[in-house]
Amino acid sequence: MRAHDLVAPFPTVTLDLPVEQAARLLADQDLPGLIVLDERGRPFSILPGTQVLRLAVPRYCQDDPALARVIDEAHADTFLRALGERTVRDSLPGRPRELPVTDPDATLLEVAALMARTHSPVVAVVDGGELLGAITLQALMDRLVGT
Amino acid sequence: MRAHDLVAPFPTVTLDLPVEQAARLLADQDLPGLIVLDERGRPFSILPGTQVLRLAVPRYCQDDPALARVIDEAHADTFLRALGERTVRDSLPGRPRELPVTDPDATLLEVAALMARTHSPVVAVVDGGELLGAITLQALMDRLVGT
Repeated sequence: MRAHDLVAPFPTVTLDLPVEQAARLLADQDLPGLIVLDERGRPFSILPGTQVLRLAVPRYCQDDPALARVIDEAHADTFLRALGERTVRDSLPGRPRELPVTDPDATLLEVAALMARTHSPVVAVVDGGELLGAITLQALMDRLVGT
Repeated sequence: MRAHDLVAPFPTVTLDLPVEQAARLLADQDLPGLIVLDERGRPFSILPGTQVLRLAVPRYCQDDPALARVIDEAHADTFLRALGERTVRDSLPGRPRELPVTDPDATLLEVAALMARTHSPVVAVVDGGELLGAITLQALMDRLVGT
């Protein structure tokens, strides 16, 4: 079995999308992450769900638990709305070292090793620069335990 | 809203469970990760799904894509079965710096910051050493976009 046997359509977002809308897409479609495309329609970044959340968490709260603790409950409940029109581009950290991107011929073991190494439950499958779709951790696990 | 409003029962595994069974639990119950308990029933580690997968990927394939590529398709399809009785304890890397564990009074923002910082889509909620359950990324996102 190869990546092309497991790839499925997967929603993408652009760098110009407001972070709040990206978070909403993740929640509404129960996605494990998001594929962010550049202007040419190629994967610019692939964000695990926790890192989509990171885009939304105020920077001063990200690394210091004590600072997150002082925000009162009412504001903590609604921090997502406080983002306003802030876009994915505005919030993205530096580009990661290795993107979880593979080619259609990758084996299940290659996809598994890539997910494990990049900590990404979503791997994009790209053929000659064209995004074919993605393989999710769930789809891969289902296949691995079924074989 | 606080962590105790969002916490829900969550399956746990022990250090003695074979990795293959841990992977099967993750797949069968569509879990975003696993809570590993120590002998006293306290969280020893909390593994995102990608890191459960990491337990199963042969070490020589984890960091070198070229080595994963040379394994033929038939063996790549079935690497999970090749683990035999290897347990979670046998495969766990060193204990992570910070576990995604919080207390019942944490706000949504604190839980979000913890998930983002630890890259974990599962946060365990512990009260006085007792595991109450967990908050998943999905449950948190649903609440954040719904508020």
